[in-house]
This record gives sequence, structure tokens and C-alpha cells, in this order.
Amino acid sequence: MMNGLTKSQLDSVFYPKSVAIIGASNREGSFGRLFLQGFINMGFKEIIPVHPREKELLGLKAYPNVKEIPGQVDLAVLLVPPDGAIKVVQDCADKQVKGIILFTAGFREKGEEGRKAEEEIVAIIRKAGVRLIGPNTNGLYSPAARLLTLPGGLTAGGLTAEVGGISVFAQSGSFNDYLTQVLVSKNIRFNKVVSCGNEADLSAANFLEYFGEDPGTKIIAGYLEGILDGTRFYEMAKEISRTKPILIWKGGLTETGARAAMAHTGKLAGSRQVWEAMFRQAGILGMGSFEEITDTLMAFSWLPMPRGRRVAIVSGMGGTNVGTADNCVSMGLEIAKLSQPILKRLAEILPPVGASATNPADVGVAMLMTPQLYGETIKLLASDENVDMLISITAPDCPASVASIVDAVKAINKPLYVSLFEIRGLIESQAKLLLDNHIPVCTDSKRAALALNRMVQYREYLESL
Amino acid sequence: MMNGLTKSQLDSVFYPKSVAIIGASNREGSFGRLFLQGFINMGFKEIIPVHPREKELLGLKAYPNVKEIPGQVDLAVLLVPPDGAIKVVQDCADKQVKGIILFTAGFREKGEEGRKAEEEIVAIIRKAGVRLIGPNTNGLYSPAARLLTLPGGLTAGGLTAEVGGISVFAQSGSFNDYLTQVLVSKNIRFNKVVSCGNEADLSAANFLEYFGEDPGTKIIAGYLEGILDGTRFYEMAKEISRTKPILIWKGGLTETGARAAMAHTGKLAGSRQVWEAMFRQAGILGMGSFEEITDTLMAFSWLPMPRGRRVAIVSGMGGTNVGTADNCVSMGLEIAKLSQPILKRLAEILPPVGASATNPADVGVAMLMTPQLYGETIKLLASDENVDMLISITAPDCPASVASIVDAVKAINKPLYVSLFEIRGLIESQAKLLLDNHIPVCTDSKRAALALNRMVQYREYLESL
Repeated sequence: MMNGLTKSQLDSVFYPKSVAIIGASNREGSFGRLFLQGFINMGFKEIIPVHPREKELLGLKAYPNVKEIPGQVDLAVLLVPPDGAIKVVQDCADKQVKGIILFTAGFREKGEEGRKAEEEIVAIIRKAGVRLIGPNTNGLYSPAARLLTLPGGLTAGGLTAEVGGISVFAQSGSFNDYLTQVLVSKNIRFNKVVSCGNEADLSAANFLEYFGEDPGTKIIAGYLEGILDGTRFYEMAKEISRTKPILIWKGGLTETGARAAMAHTGKLAGSRQVWEAMFRQAGILGMGSFEEITDTLMAFSWLPMPRGRRVAIVSGMGGTNVGTADNCVSMGLEIAKLSQPILKRLAEILPPVGASATNPADVGVAMLMTPQLYGETIKLLASDENVDMLISITAPDCPASVASIVDAVKAINKPLYVSLFEIRGLIESQAKLLLDNHIPVCTDSKRAALALNRMVQYREYLESL
Repeated sequence: MMNGLTKSQLDSVFYPKSVAIIGASNREGSFGRLFLQGFINMGFKEIIPVHPREKELLGLKAYPNVKEIPGQVDLAVLLVPPDGAIKVVQDCADKQVKGIILFTAGFREKGEEGRKAEEEIVAIIRKAGVRLIGPNTNGLYSPAARLLTLPGGLTAGGLTAEVGGISVFAQSGSFNDYLTQVLVSKNIRFNKVVSCGNEADLSAANFLEYFGEDPGTKIIAGYLEGILDGTRFYEMAKEISRTKPILIWKGGLTETGARAAMAHTGKLAGSRQVWEAMFRQAGILGMGSFEEITDTLMAFSWLPMPRGRRVAIVSGMGGTNVGTADNCVSMGLEIAKLSQPILKRLAEILPPVGASATNPADVGVAMLMTPQLYGETIKLLASDENVDMLISITAPDCPASVASIVDAVKAINKPLYVSLFEIRGLIESQAKLLLDNHIPVCTDSKRAALALNRMVQYREYLESL
């Protein structure tokens, strides 16, 4: 169990009642204005801008120093130059704020002098009992608290205050900016998102532990380059993964990638073998790319768990069926052997020629004329006890076939992932229809198979315990 | 060299002056009408519908039998039931048409009886000196001749009469339907596209040879499940790949996939090892998925060849840079070591903190404020003699950064592939801008790396000769 003090401190960080923005500005094009406007746009209630001279910023009363703010400040967001940071952190400590997000970069990741300044900051906050995220962070997205500091999200404006079950920690700020924007645009919602930064105080392990105990968090995702306390992280992950899937993309697995990680966050990335063994034993699902995370998060968010590794493939494209079967088998899935009664029924509903009444099932070119065959075939195959999950490959040039898939999904209780051919101008509305119905969709059947395979991997891990 | 007779016969098939559509219809929702309307829509001049009773179809004079058509018929398109096919093929042979496309399925792929009927058809056309595509084919797309018989393209209507340099043969009809629709929607244009069908007469090897000698064909792509004459195919490919890249997706490489291929086209798929060795020695680029073909065709169509395998990565996302570097290295690319003068200049143009003035280059969160940094960084890195190609990862939430990439590409003469984060609602217009400027774009940096790696592989093959 997390100690009670740390838990209540993290609660204050993720659900602050009042936020001071130190370095707020009304100058067009400045970060200070972007952040202030972002808080206003999200509907956060108690925003207190801090500015050395201005008395008012964007209609809000401003103070020259955090210490002069009357009443409690839960969270201080610091947008100040590196050389002024120590002084401002000391002010925050004096004010007894509960948490600090130090956006400022230019500390440990920039060499010896930066490391010393970072240590000085840590000494100040430890003494005052204040917790700190950063430095060199993009901060938070906590929709239940209407809290958003991710610069990408602030600029684009697509993020909402709607709450979901995914929580994310990342040793990369922009990772969070784009993971949230991509997935929110696909109707996925988040619970808590945090950019770890240099982890001078709060680290990935703290966030993992907090998310593990957090009742609102159902799925945990992360981007890591290195871990400060590997053993503790491993033990927590092993415990948490029993109840919540943990998806982690580890950057710097190759020697060259490790050098890039060093330039990025100053972390020793460690050897591939060690990481892979640790992930496997802790039940962590290792991700191979940004896109694999988005695909897999859609699967865990919306699909029932597969009961085994036997997949059925349904499309109107014989060639793509064959190639997709190859890709499924290569990654360890099995092509389900259909039972005799299902095979017989399939042969009855599919056209006698130009189709394949087997698995993979090819509804044939007839789908252009009788598109409901797609949905009927899906329902039939899903009713076979030998089928654990389904991949349906279709094209947006036939909206009726996509609509029949949407109908079929309502009638089955097995995971189905859709891959749509990426015909620009046609795909946008068909992908929207699927996502509006919480059906995961991608534009590459290999990616669909990979995401389903991660669910299988997680289930098999749980069964091995 | 292809024999002169075969070449002139194939010319008649791909550039017919007159086409008889046997089985044309004006019944709504029938294939006969779809095809007839498709020919009219494409602006094909001499269309002659054949129908047992109607005197006129969609305003065109119809004949009850192909033999009653006055004047030469170059190509006969047969949309007839399997049991009537032999009689109609005999009529076409009597009429001395030059080529036949036999759409009808239900021959060799459906067992012994079908195989016998197919052999009977072959005997008829061989005797008459007529060439045949199919049976069980989706036919052709030959934009220079305004010829289109792919049902998907006819239904969706997105295919044009504009001509490009890519020619395709596929042992799958729907593969062509969707490859053309996906790539035409991305501004790629085709030269000739053919669905091989059962290859009762003309086969993949004939089409490969014809495309090899065809001056309009610059790049050849294919989907194969099995080859009738492997040695001949290999020798032709080895010769043709010296001047034109050949990209082939082989379906049925796994045992399960091979069973699916047998159900699809009735072909023995052969062992993975044999195919991979054959591809490598013949200089054929083996593709792993439908999407890899689309990505790689964009690269070969629009990018200059890379001079080596050293890649530079430019983005505003440190974490994604690290993971992309891992993926590049894992597939055999090298992360370019920048020269000292370039490193020095890079450190001058990028912000001192929150960015990485190295390779991968991270322009940092500053890109939101000074988006032209993207383009400047790309131009600088492309000027380094140690850089052979570039991957730029960006987000559509910052249109100015995408615009700066478009400008930069005009000033460099090295291949650059863009990966855009898939933020729905924002990505559509930014992808369009890139594609309108003939800059390849995908939504997964791993796919960009894979496509560039195929160009490297081709170059290295040519250098090894």
C-alpha cells in the first residue's frame, strides 16, 4: 500500500482546488498566455495568475508573488526561466503549496550545473514537505479536475473534461500531448495523464503506484526510458498487473536508441534483454511503437477479453485474407478451425462461387450487391465455440457493409477489431461510424492482429499466475 | 525478349479499341449494369453490349450474340454464369476477338468438374489464337485506354483516366480493387493493373514480362500466392529488377496461410524459405502487408533514391524520436552521425533547453511557437553529407510546421517520409497538403522507416550486381 501522506499529496496534485500560474502572461504567442487561457477554456474554477507587474490578466486578479496570494494554493504551475526557478520554488515552499509542476527545462539533462540546481530545488521542497513534478515536464491532464497543462492539447484545443479509465505516465512530455490528442479524437477518454520530466522528486514508480490504487484507473499506459528504482517498480507492476493491464513503450532498447534517450532525458536506458525479462515477469505488455499503444488501448477499452488465441477473419478480399492469416500466425495467433455445423451454415449463406466459406471467410465480390453478408458472416463465426476473436477487413467504398458490421457487433460478445482500407475521402465517415459505436478500427490488419494479440498475452499471463 | 505475337496480343488486351460486354444489363443492382455504366463513365468510346433480348442498353445499340457484331471486337468482357461460359467463349473464338476477360468464377478453384470446363475453354482459345484473362478474375484497369473493370472501382467511382508509372498484377481481384482506390485517393496514378484469376491462359509471368518491356511502366507491384512456372518467373524478374523495382506481397508464407491460399485460388503456396531465397536472388522486394505496398509505392513514386542507409529523424517529440530510432536500427537502418559544422549550426537554431540538437533532432515544444524550425532543421540535416534520408514526425495540430516541411522538401534532394499523428478532424487536411505536394505520408513512423528501408534494399541490390 502507498503511504497515506504520499497518496493525499498526489490527490492534491491531480485534483487541486486552486492553481497559481507563475509566469502567466497576456502577451500573444507566449506560453504564459497559452497556459492561462487553457485553464480558463477548460473551465477550471480557482485560477490565480502570478506576474511581477500586471494587476489583472485575461480578467483574473494577478499577484506579484505566490506568497501574497490569500488562502490556500494547492498546485503551483511554474513557467519561469531556469535561473529564476530556485527562488520561485522557495517562495512556493514558504507559501506551503501542496504541489509544484516545474515546466522549466535546463537542469540535470543539461549537465553538471543543471544537476546542482536541481538538487538545490529538491532540498527546498523536501524540507517544506512539498511534492514536485519535473523539472522539464509537460505536466498534467486530469479531466475530472478540469486540469490541463499539456501544451499540445492547449494549442489544439481538442481535449475535453470527460473522464475515462486510462491513466498514463510518460518520460516524455510530447508523448502525452499526442497520445491524448490522437485517442480523444477517436472517442477514448482518460483518467489521469502525467509527464514525469526529470523525476527530481515524484517519479514513474510513484505514479504507477498511485494509478494502481486509484479506483478510477482501469488501464495503465506508459512511455519509459529508464527507471530510478527498478526493483520497486518491478514489484509494484507485478502486483498491479493482476487487476489492471499495464502497457509500456520502452524507448532506447537499441544501443543507438539508448544514446538518443540519453540526449533526451539523460537516462541510462539499460539492456534490451533485462527490460524484456522484467516486463514479461511483471506482466507488463511491452509496446513496439506509439501506434501500437493507441491500437491496444482501444482494444482494452472497448472489447471483451478473448478466451483464447483462435482468430476468425472476415473480409471480401481473398488475397488480404491470406496475407492477414500469415501475419496472425507469425505473431502467435491461431486461425480458428470452424465446427462442422458452422461451416455448413456458412456455405449456405455465402455465394457458391467467388467466395470462401471457411476461415478466413471471403464474402466475395457479392458484398458490393449484398453487403449485409458481412454482418451475417461475423455473427455466424462469432457463434462458433472455436472462435475466440474476430478481425474484419473491409473498405469504406461500401458503407452498407460497415453498417452491417456495426449491427453485428451489438449481437456478439467476442472481441472484433476492424481494419479499413485507407481510401481518403471515403474512410473518414466510416471510421467515425465505427468509433462512435466504440468499435476499434485501424487501417492495417497487422495492427489489428497485434492489438488483439496483446489482449491474449495479458489473459495468458493472468492464467499463468 | 517477349515474342512479338504475345506482345501485340497483350497490347490489344490493355489498349482495346472496341469492347463487347457479354452479359451487359440495364437491371438496377446487377453486375451487367455496373460494368456497362462503368465503361460509359470512364469515357471508353466503342462499347458494344451483348444481351439475348434487349436491342438497346443505356442508350447503346445491343446485339444478341458477339458473332453478330459488325466489325472487329478487340476485347470481350464475359459476365456469364459458369454453365454458359464455354458456349460464349466459343462464340468469341468464332468472332476472332483478340482477347477475353472471363470474370466468371466456379472453375478449377471449385474442384474436378470446374477444372475440366477450364481445360475445355483453354483448348478453344488456343485453337483460335485468342488470349484469355481468368476465369475468376476482376479484370483490368488501363487508364490510358479508359478501360476499367475492377468492381470496387466501378462502384466507388474514384478511379480516373490519368496515367502513372505503376503496373500491377495480382492473384486476387479485390487486391487490385483496393490498391488502386487507396493509392489513387493519395494522388498516385497507375499504368496498367490486371487481376490474374485462375491463369488458365495468361499468367503472372506473362504480365511481369510485358510490364518489364513496357516503356510506360516504371515500377511493378504484385500479389502472388503461387507461380505456375517458377524458373521462368525468377529469370525474368532478375532481368527486369535491374531497371525497375519489383514489389511483391506473397500470400501463404505460413502453413495456415498456405491453406487459406489453397481455398482462395487453389494454388500450392510453397515454403517460406524457397520464396524468400528466390525473391532475394531475383532482386524482388518482398512485402509484408497490403499497407507496406502502398507505403513503398509512394516512396518509389515520389522520392529520389537514398545513397546509403543513414537516416536523420526530425520531430518535436523526444520520446517518439527515441522509439523511432530503435525501430530504424532494429530493421537495419543506421542513425546518421552528424558532422561537426552541422551540429554546431543545429545548436544555434534550436532552443538551448527543451530541445535536442543532435540526431534524432528534437525541435522541442518551441515548435508550437516557432513552427518554421521544423523546415529549417530538415534543410540543415539534409545538407549533411552523412545523411542519406530523413523521417519527419509531426502532428497536424500545428499546420504551420507541416507547411514548413512542404517548403523544406522543395529545397532538398534527399528522400523524406513524413509520419503524422492520427488526430481525427485535424489530420485529413494536413495529409492532403503533403500528398498534393507528392510527399509520402503515413501515420506510423515504423511504416515510414520500412518504406525507406525498401529503397535502401533495392539500391544495395543494384550495387551488388
